Amino acid sequence: MKVLWVFAHPEPASLSAALRDEGLAALTEDGHDHRVSDLYAMGWKAVVDREDFPGEAPTDRLVITQASRRGYQGGTLSEDILAEQEKLDWADAVVFQFPLWWYGMPAILKGWFDRVFVKGYAYGVRENGSSGRTLRYGQGRLSGKRALTVVTVGGPEPTFEPRGINGQLDHVLFPLLHGTLWYTGMSALPPVAVHGADRLSEEDYGVAARRVRAAVSTLADTDPIAYRTQNGGDYDDRLVLRPHLAAGRSGLSVHVAD
Amino acid sequence: MKVLWVFAHPEPASLSAALRDEGLAALTEDGHDHRVSDLYAMGWKAVVDREDFPGEAPTDRLVITQASRRGYQGGTLSEDILAEQEKLDWADAVVFQFPLWWYGMPAILKGWFDRVFVKGYAYGVRENGSSGRTLRYGQGRLSGKRALTVVTVGGPEPTFEPRGINGQLDHVLFPLLHGTLWYTGMSALPPVAVHGADRLSEEDYGVAARRVRAAVSTLADTDPIAYRTQNGGDYDDRLVLRPHLAAGRSGLSVHVAD
Repeated sequence: MKVLWVFAHPEPASLSAALRDEGLAALTEDGHDHRVSDLYAMGWKAVVDREDFPGEAPTDRLVITQASRRGYQGGTLSEDILAEQEKLDWADAVVFQFPLWWYGMPAILKGWFDRVFVKGYAYGVRENGSSGRTLRYGQGRLSGKRALTVVTVGGPEPTFEPRGINGQLDHVLFPLLHGTLWYTGMSALPPVAVHGADRLSEEDYGVAARRVRAAVSTLADTDPIAYRTQNGGDYDDRLVLRPHLAAGRSGLSVHVAD
Repeated sequence: MKVLWVFAHPEPASLSAALRDEGLAALTEDGHDHRVSDLYAMGWKAVVDREDFPGEAPTDRLVITQASRRGYQGGTLSEDILAEQEKLDWADAVVFQFPLWWYGMPAILKGWFDRVFVKGYAYGVRENGSSGRTLRYGQGRLSGKRALTVVTVGGPEPTFEPRGINGQLDHVLFPLLHGTLWYTGMSALPPVAVHGADRLSEEDYGVAARRVRAAVSTLADTDPIAYRTQNGGDYDDRLVLRPHLAAGRSGLSVHVAD
């Protein structure tokens, strides 16, 4: 299997970096190829702006959906974006590893999605060219690839339980797991979280390292979260869940098949 | 009232910018003071890194919680961070306006929170100095301030309804509304969303402009989302919601009082 590891932490001596190295070692031991996008080490530009689209006239009003589609179709996106798309196309699976900051990704990783997942590549992809249905939520350019999220978290585990104050972890991460990965067709695996990351004992570290290694070693076999597909019949023409499914319920968990 | 408007769109001729100007005009007409943080225009640095903490020795391992607390307490954070904290301290209310990209904030705005909301200022704030309870979720350094979120969204409104495929909007925005704004003590108002933002007719624009103006004009009076306070008795010692509240339910809506 070919695995891309996208990593977002500024400190090479951090817990996050140590866990990444455990994960990469496990991949090597299992005979998998891997490549790493270490966003801080690469000096990744976090912010979508006009420089991403060198094919656009500098005086034009920048409409990002349109500029990104033209850039993608014309092969004129900036080089750093093209390099990441090439890595994604190469990969069978992608690991996204980051510390949970304000209940989301660090800006540098959010900006990786904002910049790399352009129109025509990750959204606005249609069946049979421009005439067919929009392929999203389970279908699309990146379908067939697996995605594992590994997060280090300051708060303790109970605070991310279904009734914990911070919100259930896969609900807090719904914009990434469902709204980004599944949207583009990738199969999102249940996230791996290392809690209490600011105060791990040596023993805790051993447990965390083994959990990351185990998740990486089972990357090809773990059941993805069973999000519903957009075009499989569960949603009506307005893309609202049909009444007989998860009947009488609402909330993010209705989008997971029973 | 003193209002800070934090704005995150790269294009001065965008729909977002036009709606911002409508909102600012409404504030002026109502006799409120305002200041604007136009993040793209300011060239805001999106990424937390060592440069944020010029008081730290360049050879030290960077532990962001510790470095940010020392920087905040010692007044040695980088100048751009200090300037934003000063604006926040000045404001009675803050408007956060952005296009919804991948179901979250653009990286430049996420990075505003990552960098400005440092330890000791926005989290890790304790009652009576270091000995007391941690003040979060309804209490903290920023309590008493109101926060309005204004988002422009590509998808149509039904897709963000309680059973819509994208997830209910206030659930998708939970990491911001609850996990960031309410966490720091700010009262999060119900978000204002302009749907179908890529294809608004002139008439649609008029409706959207009036909605933004109305939300701004009622900023002082609108009922905030009734999130539960951490320290008000609804959560147990592990910060899990007590069984008799929202009994038998789970999901993000249990954190809103009935």
